[in-house]
Amino acid sequence: MQDTAPHTVIASPPDSRVIADWIRLEGTAGVGCRTGRLLLDAFGSPAAIFRAGQAALAAHVPAVQAAALCAPLSSELARQIELTLAWLSEAHHHVLTLHDADYPPALRQIPDPPLLLYVNGQRALLSSPMIAVVGSRNASTQGKANAQAFAEGLSHAGLCVVSGMALGIDTAAHEGALRGSGSTIAVIGTGPDRVYPARNRPLAHRIAAEGCILSEYALGTPPVAANFPRRNRIISGLAAGVLVVEAAAQSGSLITAQMAAEQGREVFALPGSIHSTLAKGCHQLIREGAQLVETVDEVLAAMRVSPLVRQAAPPPVAAGNATLLAALGHDPVEPDALLARLGLEAGALAGELLALELAGLLERLPDGRVQRVVRAA
Amino acid sequence: MQDTAPHTVIASPPDSRVIADWIRLEGTAGVGCRTGRLLLDAFGSPAAIFRAGQAALAAHVPAVQAAALCAPLSSELARQIELTLAWLSEAHHHVLTLHDADYPPALRQIPDPPLLLYVNGQRALLSSPMIAVVGSRNASTQGKANAQAFAEGLSHAGLCVVSGMALGIDTAAHEGALRGSGSTIAVIGTGPDRVYPARNRPLAHRIAAEGCILSEYALGTPPVAANFPRRNRIISGLAAGVLVVEAAAQSGSLITAQMAAEQGREVFALPGSIHSTLAKGCHQLIREGAQLVETVDEVLAAMRVSPLVRQAAPPPVAAGNATLLAALGHDPVEPDALLARLGLEAGALAGELLALELAGLLERLPDGRVQRVVRAA
Repeated sequence: MQDTAPHTVIASPPDSRVIADWIRLEGTAGVGCRTGRLLLDAFGSPAAIFRAGQAALAAHVPAVQAAALCAPLSSELARQIELTLAWLSEAHHHVLTLHDADYPPALRQIPDPPLLLYVNGQRALLSSPMIAVVGSRNASTQGKANAQAFAEGLSHAGLCVVSGMALGIDTAAHEGALRGSGSTIAVIGTGPDRVYPARNRPLAHRIAAEGCILSEYALGTPPVAANFPRRNRIISGLAAGVLVVEAAAQSGSLITAQMAAEQGREVFALPGSIHSTLAKGCHQLIREGAQLVETVDEVLAAMRVSPLVRQAAPPPVAAGNATLLAALGHDPVEPDALLARLGLEAGALAGELLALELAGLLERLPDGRVQRVVRAA
Repeated sequence: MQDTAPHTVIASPPDSRVIADWIRLEGTAGVGCRTGRLLLDAFGSPAAIFRAGQAALAAHVPAVQAAALCAPLSSELARQIELTLAWLSEAHHHVLTLHDADYPPALRQIPDPPLLLYVNGQRALLSSPMIAVVGSRNASTQGKANAQAFAEGLSHAGLCVVSGMALGIDTAAHEGALRGSGSTIAVIGTGPDRVYPARNRPLAHRIAAEGCILSEYALGTPPVAANFPRRNRIISGLAAGVLVVEAAAQSGSLITAQMAAEQGREVFALPGSIHSTLAKGCHQLIREGAQLVETVDEVLAAMRVSPLVRQAAPPPVAAGNATLLAALGHDPVEPDALLARLGLEAGALAGELLALELAGLLERLPDGRVQRVVRAA
């Protein structure tokens, strides 16, 4: 693809008039990302397109589109511009045009980059190195734990984790990423003033505050089924790689992975049991050339990011504790329940628990229960 | 590799004198598979080698080996020949030489085919199309169920399943294969009159009766650690493909897979949970180019064998367990994590888990985690 000529990239924030022209261009019937870009390449800016006149435009686009571009501004679009300018006056709300200097460069390289990006949150994240973590909405508990752990590890290594804010894997990925320094970007399939699904409202607020919500859809755009697969090209387009954690055969995550491959991005997939329907999509990707990964470091190595600086390994747990650790699991547990599970005497158990606590491997909760503390290797 | 010249292949069973010469050749100090084959290519037969004289031999092998070949028959080798001829007089005992017409042609193509094969059982199986199914001795219950199901399916499709009669995956593979029409070949690392491990004595008897036991080692050869990896080249050498079901990192099954790849055989591997140590070897193979497979039909397609005619599906598991089975997923899981997932009391969960375990649908792992076991349809 031909990139936008450097002289058209502007470093200062666009003013209201410029924003209005971009919204008008993007909102004109029949003008999508590809036609818009073609005209921008030919005329240099939306203002120049609207000044060009029908004959000049018709040399590049069908007559009906040329006519639409020369028609007076519709009241509907005027209202949309007004809404957008009001939205932009609020803190942490931004619009990036394809010509803005901080439009994500990787996204600008895809065949059909959005003309406009609506941003709610930390705009600076758009210049981070990014990796997408995606997967099934109907994820397994283990799948969600994997997504969270990988996202957290990738974020700790400085990568910003991009996902789609759907339930399941996406949600777990955003949550894990928010724990690390790399933070997270949610690319949504509605207008930037909408949250879908409603259950993710608290997560959306956290991401807007600490991370970044991104949309190519105009304010007020409701959830429309067709917009979600199309949105996936932005998820993969932003990122240098896409990690698929769990995916059924023929699922949306595979579309994202396919787009990623077409965009020249690395595709990673976690394998799973041959008896799990949620592993079938990942296995298909691996057969088609995706890189099978078991650890965060494998992803980082392929992305040429330095592996995490490890904290000192925890003191080795006395051999006798393996049974206790297994019995503890990873949830809060009543000491009495442990007694029953282990068949120990109360005094012996108390001693074992104290040893774990002193080693920093056990926490006593205010309600008297105990919980194992797993420290990253 | 240069194949044995056709004129040296003999169709009728070798007589005692010929067998004795082969045993003497194979048993001469310093003469292994490669030197033996070199001399056979040069002189045509063991008898011709022994007639050639030291000077002629020394043109092909070091002087010390030439001298050893011209020395009188040792009493030790004479005794070995006597033992072998006695063993051969029993039903279903055979010795195949590299020049026999029914020496398995695929095995003859490897760089170091055994000069002699000791066969106990259905000699005709040696001309079957074969696939190897191998894996860990310390297999999980699910791994063994997978090995059995795949071996049974492959055998039903007419493939003879080759394995090494070790505990774990090998044993499960032989057992599954014995249920199908393709039967099974056990390639052992001891003499054909020994069984190792002793626990597999009943299985060895079944394989000798219905399938075939194969060894390159002389009668009386005890289990010696070095012989088992070397034996693996025969397992892969006989087969057109090798399926690795479960394997830890740096395990013997990976040696078999590596030999298979060097011999130009297809390598297949079953994926598994990223949290299972027994999946790590398979994942390594997949990263190195092995074909990830989830079903018998995928293996058959790659082997260009017609897929099976399906039997009816098994009765579904009682509905009451659906929630628990869903919560279990297909990865190793801490019982405590299940409690949290299901909101059950510990006692109630323990009862449900026990019921699943008794039904053969759950495995308790050594580290205290549990894992669902899916049985073949």
